[in-house]
Amino acid sequence: MNLFEFLTPSAEVCRRTGPHDKIVFSSRVRLARNVPGISFPGHGKKADRVRAYDQLMPAIQSMPVMAGGMAESMERLTPNDKQLLVERHLISREHAAKGAGSGFVLNREESFCVMVNEEDHLRMQALRPGLQLQEAWMAIDALDTALQEHTEFAFSPQYGYLTACPTNLGTGIRVSAMLHLPGLVLSEQVSQIIQAVSKLGLAVRGLYGEGTEALGNIFQVSNQMTLGESETEIVERISKVLQQVIEHEENARLSLLEKKSRVVFNHIGRAYGILSHAHTISSKETMNLLSLLRLGVDIGMLPAASRSFVDELLLLTQPAHLQALFTKREKLTAEERDILRADVLRDRLKILERPDHTVFGSGTAPGIEPVE
Amino acid sequence: MNLFEFLTPSAEVCRRTGPHDKIVFSSRVRLARNVPGISFPGHGKKADRVRAYDQLMPAIQSMPVMAGGMAESMERLTPNDKQLLVERHLISREHAAKGAGSGFVLNREESFCVMVNEEDHLRMQALRPGLQLQEAWMAIDALDTALQEHTEFAFSPQYGYLTACPTNLGTGIRVSAMLHLPGLVLSEQVSQIIQAVSKLGLAVRGLYGEGTEALGNIFQVSNQMTLGESETEIVERISKVLQQVIEHEENARLSLLEKKSRVVFNHIGRAYGILSHAHTISSKETMNLLSLLRLGVDIGMLPAASRSFVDELLLLTQPAHLQALFTKREKLTAEERDILRADVLRDRLKILERPDHTVFGSGTAPGIEPVE
Repeated sequence: MNLFEFLTPSAEVCRRTGPHDKIVFSSRVRLARNVPGISFPGHGKKADRVRAYDQLMPAIQSMPVMAGGMAESMERLTPNDKQLLVERHLISREHAAKGAGSGFVLNREESFCVMVNEEDHLRMQALRPGLQLQEAWMAIDALDTALQEHTEFAFSPQYGYLTACPTNLGTGIRVSAMLHLPGLVLSEQVSQIIQAVSKLGLAVRGLYGEGTEALGNIFQVSNQMTLGESETEIVERISKVLQQVIEHEENARLSLLEKKSRVVFNHIGRAYGILSHAHTISSKETMNLLSLLRLGVDIGMLPAASRSFVDELLLLTQPAHLQALFTKREKLTAEERDILRADVLRDRLKILERPDHTVFGSGTAPGIEPVE
Repeated sequence: MNLFEFLTPSAEVCRRTGPHDKIVFSSRVRLARNVPGISFPGHGKKADRVRAYDQLMPAIQSMPVMAGGMAESMERLTPNDKQLLVERHLISREHAAKGAGSGFVLNREESFCVMVNEEDHLRMQALRPGLQLQEAWMAIDALDTALQEHTEFAFSPQYGYLTACPTNLGTGIRVSAMLHLPGLVLSEQVSQIIQAVSKLGLAVRGLYGEGTEALGNIFQVSNQMTLGESETEIVERISKVLQQVIEHEENARLSLLEKKSRVVFNHIGRAYGILSHAHTISSKETMNLLSLLRLGVDIGMLPAASRSFVDELLLLTQPAHLQALFTKREKLTAEERDILRADVLRDRLKILERPDHTVFGSGTAPGIEPVE
C-alpha cells in the first residue's frame, strides 16, 4: 500500500478538535513493552529482532482497533515515507532510521501507532487532538490488555515491565503533550516555566522530541519517571501541571495584549506579510512565522476558522509533506524545497483575509491624533 | 511664513521626472562663495556673520529666480522645520545646526536653495530631478553671474574663488547626484564600483552626505577636486562617470533577473509584505525596504506608475515629514514615530496592487511540476 495515499489528508487531520486545542496541539501516551527471552533490539542479533518482529506484527494487526490500518516493515519505506511519519509524529526520528526487522502498525484514524523494534520490541502509542491524556491513556491501556491475551511481556514483580533503557522501567509509560506557547516565548517567561516544570519531574523538549529545537514555539512536555507511581497517578500529575502551563500561557497572552499589543500585532503582521510574499523560505522560518499566525487566530486578528488552516500549513510545509503533496519529482534539493514552500504559502495565503489590524484599537498610535 | 505650508506637497515633488530617473533621484550643483573683507563664518565673530548675512540675504532675495520664494534666519526655524529641509536635501545637516546669523533662501519650485553662513558665506545650490548635471550647472552659473552684479566675491587670480576649506578652493563647485543602486548592492558589486569611482577622483557617500550610511541603497556621488579644471570640465567628467555607473546598475539588475530572479523576487516580496503589515518600523528599515519596492517597480513586479508613490513614501516616512504631515502633537518620541510610520505605510500600501508574482515565470519553481 502507498503510505502517502493511506495517510489522512492533512486538511482533515488538522480539522480534528479537542479540549484546549488553542494551546495543546495533541496528547499522546506510549507504552514500552518487550518479549521475554529475546534480546532487546539494540542488544541482540538480527535474528532476534526478526523473531520479535514475526511474533509481534501479526499480533498487533489482529487487534480490532487496528483493523483497516497499515502495517509495514521499515525497509520497505522510502526515505520520504519515513519522514512523513516523523512529521505526523507517528514514529520517532530514531525509528525512521531503522531498516529490516523493524516496522510499524498504524490504524485507519492515525490515533494508534505501534513501533516494532524501536528501542524496545514494542512501543505502542495512542494519540488524541487537544488535551486528552486520560483518554489516550485509557485507549492505549485497552490495547495493551488486549495484546497481552496473545503475547507475554517481560515483567518483573519487583521492577514492573522490563525495558531496554532503565528510564522506561516499571510502567514503561511516557505521557506527553505538544503545546503551543508563543505567549510565554514573546513575554520571555518560557525558560522560567520550563525550569518550574522540570522541577516537577517533567521534561520539556522541542518539536521532534529529545535534543530538538522548540521551532514554532512548540514544546513537548512529558514525564521523566516511569517507576514508583502508577500509570493513573502519572497521567493525573502531568494533566495538572499542563493545566497550569495552559493557564500561564493564557495569562501571558492577555498581559501581552494589554501591555504590548503593538509588539504582538507587529510580530503577527510581519509574519503574515512575509509568509504571503516570500519567494523562498526555510522550514524553520516558516514554522516560526506560522506559529505567530496561529497566535493571530487565537487573539482574533485572523478569523477563528483559520486555525485548522494554519495548522495544515504547519504540516504541509514540512519537507516530506511538501515533497509528497506538491511535486512528482523524486527528491527536491533543500533550495528547491524552499522555493516550492514559498510558492505554496503565497498561493494558500491568498484565501486568508488580510489580518484585521483594527480589531484591537484603531490604526493609529495611542495619543496621536491624525491631521490627514 | 510657515515652512511646511510653503514646501511643495511631497506627492508633487516626487512626481517630477528627469532623464534616467529609474536610477538617478536628483542632480545638484552647488557653488561656494565668500564676501571679501569679512572672516569666514567659522572663523569670525558673530558681528562678522551678521554683516555677511545682512548684505547677502536681500541680494539673494532680489534675484528674479528667487521671486515668490522663502527667506529665513535659521534661528526662526523649529528643529522640525530644519529637519524637513535636511530630509528634502535643501540644506546640509551642518547648516541645520546653525542659529542666529545663518539663513537660507529657497525658491518657489525648490529648484534653488542658497545657504548663508554655512561653512562659507554663500552656498548656492541648483537641484534637478534625474540626471541633469549640465542643466543644474547652467542654472547655478546664471544665478552666480546675476548675484555678482550686486556683490563682490572673494577671488584670487592665482587660486580662483577663496573658500573656508581648501577642498573647495578654485571653482568652489560641488557637482553631485543621488543614485539608487540596489542592483549593485544585491549583486555585491557596489564596493568595487565605489572603489573605481573613487580612483577617478569622485567621492561616494550615503544619503545625507559625508559620513552617513547608504540607507535604502542610495548613494551620493560628487567631485572631490575643485581646482585645476574648469566647471564645465568637472560637470562633463562626472556626467560620464555617472553614465557608466548607471550602465553598471542596469547590467547588475538584468543579470540578477536572469540568474537570481528568485532572490530578487524574494527580497521585493518580503519588503512589500513587511511594509504593508508591520505595526512598528524604524526609519532605517523603512528606507531599506522601500528601496526594494522601488526596484520592484523598475523590474515590473509593481505597476510603473507607482515609482513616484514609492518615492513619496521614502520622503514622508522620514521623521520630520512624518511629524509635520500626520500629527498635531508637538514632538513624537522615536517609538511613537515608529508606530505612526507603520500606520501610515499600512494605510498607503493598501492602494498598491499586490506584487505581481507571475510577471517573471510562473508561481512554481523551475523544473518542478505541480501535482495539485
